[in-house]
Amino acid sequence: MKRSISLLVLSLFFTTSLQAQARSDSATVRSIYSEMLSNGKAYDWLRVLSNDIGGRLSGSPEAQQAVEYTRKAMLEAGADTVWLQEIWVPHWVRGAKESGRIIARTGDSQEVPVCALGGSVATPKEGISGNVVEVHDFDELKALGREKIEGKIVFYNHPFDPTFINTFEAYGEAGKYRWSGPSEAARYGAVASIVRSMTLAQDDFPHTGAMGYNDSLPKIPCAAISTNGANLLSNILRADPGARFLLRMDCQLLDSVLSHNVIGEIRGRELPDEVLVVGGHLDSWDTGDGAHDDGAGVMQSVEILRTFKALKLRPKRTIRAIAFMNEENGLRGGRGYAAWASTNSREKHVMAIESDAGGFTPYGFGLDMPEDKKPSIRKYRELFRPYNVWNFEEEHGGADISPLKPSLKVPLVGLVVDSQRYFDYHHAGSDTFDKVNKRELLLGAAAMGSLLYLVSENGF
Amino acid sequence: MKRSISLLVLSLFFTTSLQAQARSDSATVRSIYSEMLSNGKAYDWLRVLSNDIGGRLSGSPEAQQAVEYTRKAMLEAGADTVWLQEIWVPHWVRGAKESGRIIARTGDSQEVPVCALGGSVATPKEGISGNVVEVHDFDELKALGREKIEGKIVFYNHPFDPTFINTFEAYGEAGKYRWSGPSEAARYGAVASIVRSMTLAQDDFPHTGAMGYNDSLPKIPCAAISTNGANLLSNILRADPGARFLLRMDCQLLDSVLSHNVIGEIRGRELPDEVLVVGGHLDSWDTGDGAHDDGAGVMQSVEILRTFKALKLRPKRTIRAIAFMNEENGLRGGRGYAAWASTNSREKHVMAIESDAGGFTPYGFGLDMPEDKKPSIRKYRELFRPYNVWNFEEEHGGADISPLKPSLKVPLVGLVVDSQRYFDYHHAGSDTFDKVNKRELLLGAAAMGSLLYLVSENGF
Repeated sequence: MKRSISLLVLSLFFTTSLQAQARSDSATVRSIYSEMLSNGKAYDWLRVLSNDIGGRLSGSPEAQQAVEYTRKAMLEAGADTVWLQEIWVPHWVRGAKESGRIIARTGDSQEVPVCALGGSVATPKEGISGNVVEVHDFDELKALGREKIEGKIVFYNHPFDPTFINTFEAYGEAGKYRWSGPSEAARYGAVASIVRSMTLAQDDFPHTGAMGYNDSLPKIPCAAISTNGANLLSNILRADPGARFLLRMDCQLLDSVLSHNVIGEIRGRELPDEVLVVGGHLDSWDTGDGAHDDGAGVMQSVEILRTFKALKLRPKRTIRAIAFMNEENGLRGGRGYAAWASTNSREKHVMAIESDAGGFTPYGFGLDMPEDKKPSIRKYRELFRPYNVWNFEEEHGGADISPLKPSLKVPLVGLVVDSQRYFDYHHAGSDTFDKVNKRELLLGAAAMGSLLYLVSENGF
Repeated sequence: MKRSISLLVLSLFFTTSLQAQARSDSATVRSIYSEMLSNGKAYDWLRVLSNDIGGRLSGSPEAQQAVEYTRKAMLEAGADTVWLQEIWVPHWVRGAKESGRIIARTGDSQEVPVCALGGSVATPKEGISGNVVEVHDFDELKALGREKIEGKIVFYNHPFDPTFINTFEAYGEAGKYRWSGPSEAARYGAVASIVRSMTLAQDDFPHTGAMGYNDSLPKIPCAAISTNGANLLSNILRADPGARFLLRMDCQLLDSVLSHNVIGEIRGRELPDEVLVVGGHLDSWDTGDGAHDDGAGVMQSVEILRTFKALKLRPKRTIRAIAFMNEENGLRGGRGYAAWASTNSREKHVMAIESDAGGFTPYGFGLDMPEDKKPSIRKYRELFRPYNVWNFEEEHGGADISPLKPSLKVPLVGLVVDSQRYFDYHHAGSDTFDKVNKRELLLGAAAMGSLLYLVSENGF
């Protein structure tokens, strides 16, 4: 009987203690949300990064300005330490002139919005022109074969599938025509390739993005065409299959440049060598100002440092914000950080979280980790319910943090946000600061900051 | 033994049949989403309503054009029947001139953005000017009393609370200063009142909205001031408490006007006298073009008719789309419809659903009905999970459908959407078509259309 009572007391003690812990966690999460929504600075920092610095492709002067500005923002946020990690990055430049023109058999012609894909070779100065072969997928390309394609320009007109609810699934399905399309067209003797922009929007913005050449095939110039331009070209080709396309681009790949990851942290109060990473990527394409992709993720990460300082929340483990360089055309920053972390045996990386899907309203966390690790995150589900963060079933972490998985087995988390508007702006001239809503941006920071707090205190 | 086997067979039969039903429901929901996301017309209809017709305050020529256009859209959508229900509406007009000016003791003065609240009386032609008493709530007003307020202009500077996650809660908390503020100020002898705009945005748009006079008190002119204007006025008053404000408005209430609810339906195949209502309100404030508030809800409702027709989904019960007139300053359309429904004993209203929180990404359904009815909706939770519609805990239905509850005990449902951007635009010049995302709008229509299908087939 005595023993039972002891057990009962003990059990009551633990229950009460657990309830108190839950209350305390819940109150801290509330304070993180309230602090950010009331006093958050991420939006103001993002305004400077987007409007004053602008697009910041790896190797550009703007990318270097962004490094310096982010370092200052981290210091202003109150980070205990801020440092730059040297990263060599590729330096591809668009050049001053790029244009696309549809030329009817009658000689009438019409300019359409195009932009070089990142990594493309230039055309000759006078441009490349040729008849256009429109295909919707690689099967059609293959069926046409060298006879129908040689000497021509391949036009991949593969529309985004609007029936996916998460627009990233449409991107996942169509993206190969941007990445591999040029070399696949070159395989059959095409002289250039054009790809329909990766977007559901119907507008005049061409959307760039990285492509990759197959080194065993000729490297041909490749461009994206706006969706309106793609529809026009397709309609003209239907009426006039002899119409030609004239593509002019003077992009080029220069020598690699020394750049940096920007890293700031708040040291853990008890386990400073156990590190939780939060980040986004600082480089962007040059067409817009990279507000959503991914200035948002960078400034949300800096906001988290600021909020811990403002609330005097000294975390048990170290929280490290990283603005990664060169996600868009190389992933050198993500790889470089993981390589450095692998050689640094003093530290243990507990978790890494990334925001790289735009500064939109968050609704979940993607869990890129073994199944048996997922309950360590899912147990916080109820704590996030009041903030409309409910989905813990997605599986994507983030590109920049992905190299931490093979080398160090770090559990990865990706902030899941409403995806409806993202591809309207992605990699296009329309990715500008005015498309960002302050509260949506801050809610993303608050969701990540809260998860970091919980994992910092309670471990994984 | 035999009996057990019979039971087993019977139970297997029911299980299989239920599973088949669930599969079929799930497939139909998928087809509704796919049809809308691929071929939806709501966005195009909304473009005309917003850009070509524009703001459509009750009684205005634009409101009548909107009635005619919505009737045509319902016919184009393929409704079996479309009719207009006559509704007498108040006809308040803003007038051509309204302005607000801060006048320092030095005589320096500065224009700030203001707009009359809906229903306000005019100022004299030369305006009303007076010293300004800034208060943050009714307690401060009361504490100041007649001695400090008489002959002055009361300035309610009650900011939206940014710490609410759902911005409607901030509106619920601050809204009384717009609605009751003028008469409460008049109670202590104020000559006019100004209210800080109901928004979290920091910008130059004043946000109008309905106010209500207490008939036992003097009716004083009342206006909203933009948040930037409110901050400026507050700062000036701190430095110069003797600063005055000059308010000029020539709004007036004209004679009531005959207007209409626009009603279109698809007749039920088995129980045509059992009716499911879906709607939004067609009138809007005159400051913007009413795209989010509530052109969105109207055109989502018409889209649902179109989609049932396009998919050849003949519902078991009747689905009736209603574009209600006069939600903003009278609710005459909602009241008139409920009154008509009450006298129509042939029909039974099974459910009513409204979208009046903007054309943003939906994430739930508010259930305004007795607790014992809620399981009839919540049982569909899993069917909506793939569409990120997960919250069945809110309790708000909608203003236009609300009169159906006291008279006919109709269970009400409100579409719950992401609220972060709504009050940036609400009742302001910034509520324009370009703020609407096509997919977000269509996802709202698809969520409502799917719920209507399910309840139509399975009853309540």
